[in-house]
Amino acid sequence: VKRVLVTGGCGFIGSHLIDKLMEKGYDVLCVDNLFSGTKENIMKWFGKPRFEFVRHDITQPLFVEVDEIYHLACPASPVFYQNNPIKTIKTCVIGTMNMLGLAKRVNARILLASTSEVYGDPDIHPQKETYWGHVNPIGIRSCYDEGKRMAETLMFDYHRFNGVNIAVARIFNTYGPRMLENDGRVGEAVTIYGDGSQSRSFCYIDDQVRGLISLMESDQTGPINIGNPEEYTIKQLAVAIQKLVKQKFPNASPPD
Amino acid sequence: VKRVLVTGGCGFIGSHLIDKLMEKGYDVLCVDNLFSGTKENIMKWFGKPRFEFVRHDITQPLFVEVDEIYHLACPASPVFYQNNPIKTIKTCVIGTMNMLGLAKRVNARILLASTSEVYGDPDIHPQKETYWGHVNPIGIRSCYDEGKRMAETLMFDYHRFNGVNIAVARIFNTYGPRMLENDGRVGEAVTIYGDGSQSRSFCYIDDQVRGLISLMESDQTGPINIGNPEEYTIKQLAVAIQKLVKQKFPNASPPD
Ligand SMILES: NC(=O)c1ccc[n+]([C@@H]2O[C@H](COP(=O)([O-])OP(=O)(O)OC[C@H]3O[C@@H](n4cnc5c(N)ncnc54)[C@H](O)[C@@H]3O)[C@@H](O)[C@H]2O)c1
Ligand SMILES: NC(=O)c1ccc[n+]([C@@H]2O[C@H](COP(=O)([O-])OP(=O)(O)OC[C@H]3O[C@@H](n4cnc5c(N)ncnc54)[C@H](O)[C@@H]3O)[C@@H](O)[C@H]2O)c1
Ligand SMILES: O=c1ccn([C@@H]2O[C@H](COP(=O)(O)OP(=O)(O)O)[C@@H](O)[C@H]2O)c(=O)[nH]1
Ligand SMILES: O=c1ccn([C@@H]2O[C@H](COP(=O)(O)OP(=O)(O)O)[C@@H](O)[C@H]2O)c(=O)[nH]1
Ligand SMILES: O=c1ccn([C@@H]2O[C@H](COP(=O)(O)OP(=O)(O)O)[C@@H](O)[C@H]2O)c(=O)[nH]1
Ligand SMILES: O=c1ccn([C@@H]2O[C@H](COP(=O)(O)OP(=O)(O)O)[C@@H](O)[C@H]2O)c(=O)[nH]1
Repeated sequence: VKRVLVTGGCGFIGSHLIDKLMEKGYDVLCVDNLFSGTKENIMKWFGKPRFEFVRHDITQPLFVEVDEIYHLACPASPVFYQNNPIKTIKTCVIGTMNMLGLAKRVNARILLASTSEVYGDPDIHPQKETYWGHVNPIGIRSCYDEGKRMAETLMFDYHRFNGVNIAVARIFNTYGPRMLENDGRVGEAVTIYGDGSQSRSFCYIDDQVRGLISLMESDQTGPINIGNPEEYTIKQLAVAIQKLVKQKFPNASPPD
Repeated sequence: VKRVLVTGGCGFIGSHLIDKLMEKGYDVLCVDNLFSGTKENIMKWFGKPRFEFVRHDITQPLFVEVDEIYHLACPASPVFYQNNPIKTIKTCVIGTMNMLGLAKRVNARILLASTSEVYGDPDIHPQKETYWGHVNPIGIRSCYDEGKRMAETLMFDYHRFNGVNIAVARIFNTYGPRMLENDGRVGEAVTIYGDGSQSRSFCYIDDQVRGLISLMESDQTGPINIGNPEEYTIKQLAVAIQKLVKQKFPNASPPD
C-alpha cells in the first residue's frame, strides 16, 4: 500500500485531498500543527487503521517513512499569514526545506502546494507558467508571496542538486465546503473595493483535488497552474451572491 | 566606543568596510566562515585590540553584544553561489534571520547588503527602489536573487513586527582591489556575449563603502540603491580593457 504524507491535512484543501486518498485505499499520514486547520475536518478517519494524525510543526524536522509527500502546510489567507509574518516565512522556507530533506532521505516524490500569488499583481492575463511575476518584496503580503516563491526555488534546487523527484502546483482560488470562514469578514456586509472590475478565477475543491492527484501521479515537475480557466469579475461575483441571498450592498454603488 | 559587527568581513566589500570602521576608531568584530573570503584581506588588523575575528557560519545562531551590524555574509558571484545553491539559500534566509534575531535581542541597528539582482532582468532602466523587479523564481540564479529578496522581506517584517532598526542597501556592481579573481574567468581571453550592448554600472569600492556607512549612520530604512549612477555597455568596458592591455578578442568581432 502506498504510504502518503499530507502536510496541512487538517486544512481546507488538505482534508478534501485526504478524503480522496483514503477512498483510493492509500495509507495516509496527516501532519498538521492546527494553526488554521481543525481536527473536525479529518475526524471521520480517526480510528481507521490506514489513517494517522500527527500533531507536528513542520518548521521542526520530521522523520517518517513515506512514498509520497503532498506538502500543503501553510496559512493561506491574509488574516492568518499576516498574524505572524515571520512564522509564515519559517513555514514556507524552513518547513519546505525540512520536507525536501525528508523526501531526499526516503526517496519520496514531493508535491508543493504553491499559489497563483507567486505571480503577484500580474501585468499579463491569464498568467502562463513561464511568467516570472510582479511581486513586491517588502510589503505586508511578501511573507506569503515571497515565501512561496522561495519554496519553489528550494524545490527546483533540491531537484537539480539532489535529484529529488518534485512537482510544483500553482493553485488558483479554490472554494467549497470547509473553507475557512473565520478570516475576519464573516457577518460583514458585502462590499466591492474599487469598481469591482478586478477578476479572479474560482475552482471547485473537488476539481482542485483531482488536479493535485493527477499531477502527483504524473512524471511532471511543473510548475503547473491548477484552477478554473475562466475568470469572473468581483462585481459578477457580488451580483451572483446578491441573487442568492438578496443582500444589500451598503458600502458600494449597487451593481446595475 | 561603538561595537560594530561585520558579517562577511573577510570578503571584498567587507574587508574594505572594516578598514574604514577601524580608521574611524570603532570596535570591530569580523564574522566569516571563509567560504569565499580570506584572512589575508583583514590580516593587517590582527593583534590590534579593537579588532577581533570569529570564524563562524551565520546559518548557526550567534550570541554577541554589539551596537551595529553590517550584514554582508553571502557568496556574491555565480561561481560561488551556484556551487551549493541550497547553502546559498540557507545563508540568505536562515543567516539573515539569525542576524535579525541578534539585532532584536541586543537592540542593534542592522544593515543588509542586498543587491541590484533583486530587480532581476529589469524591464525599466534605471531601476528605482519602488520597482518590484523581474526575477525568475525557479532558475539557477534564483538561489541568490530570491534569497536576497527573502532577506529583504525578513528585514521589513522584523522591522514592522518587532521594531528592529533596519537599513537595506541594494548594492550595484562594485570593483577595486581584493575583488575575487578566482571566479572561473581568469586567464581566459576577453569575450563579449551577444553584441555587447547590455549595460552595467561600476562603482569604485571606496565610494561603495562610503555609501554603506552613510546609510548606517542615517535613520533611513531604505531600500536604497548604492552604485555608480552612470551605466556603460559591456562593449565600452571591453574597449577600455583593450586600450589598457592591448589584448586580442579571439571569440568576438573586434570593436570598431
Ligand atoms: N485555498 C486556496 O484557494 C489556495 C490558493 C492558493 C494556494 N493554496 C495553498 O494550498 C495550501 C492549503 O491551503 P488551504 O486553503 O487548505 O489553507 P488552510 O489554512 O485551510 O490549511 C493549511 C493547513 O496547514 C496547517 N499549517 C500551517 N502552518 C503549519 C506548520 N508550520 N506546521 C504544520 N501545519 C501547518 C494549518 O493548521 C492548516 O491545517 C496552502 O499551502 C496554500 O498556500 C490555497
Ligand atoms: N561585489 C558586488 O559587486 C556586490 C554587488 C551586489 C551585492 N553585493 C553583496 O555584498 C556582500 C559582499 O559581497 P562581496 O563582493 O564582498 O563578496 P565576497 O564573496 O567577497 O564576500 C562575502 C563574504 O561572506 C562570507 N560568507 C559567505 N557565506 C557565509 C556564511 N554562511 N557564514 C559566514 N560568512 C559567510 C564569505 O566567506 C566572504 O568572506 C554580499 O552580501 C553580496 O551579495 C556585492
Ligand atoms: O528525514 C528527514 C531528513 C531531513 N530533515 C530535515 O530537512 C532539512 C534539510 O535536510 P538536508 O539533508 O537537505 O540538508 P542538511 O541541512 O541536513 O544538510 C534538515 O534541516 C533536516 O533536519 C527532516 O526533517 N527529515
Ligand atoms: O469584501 C471584499 C473582499 C475582497 N474584494 C476584492 O476581491 C478581490 C479578492 O480579494 P481577496 O483579498 O479575497 O483575495 P486575493 O486578492 O488574495 O485574491 C480583490 O480585488 C478585492 O479588492 C472586494 O471587493 N470586497
Ligand atoms: O542573539 C541572538 C538571538 C537570536 N538568534 C537567532 O535568531 C533567530 C531568530 O530569532 P528570533 O528571536 O527572532 O525568533 P525565534 O525563532 O527564536 O522565535 C533564532 O534562530 C535565534 O537562534 C541569534 O542567532 N542570536
Ligand atoms: O566574459 C564575459 C562575461 C560577461 N559578459 C557580459 O557582461 C554582463 C555582466 O555579466 P556577469 O555574469 O559578470 O554579471 P551580472 O550579469 O551578474 O551583472 C552580462 O551581460 C554578460 O553577458 C561578457 O560579455 N563577457
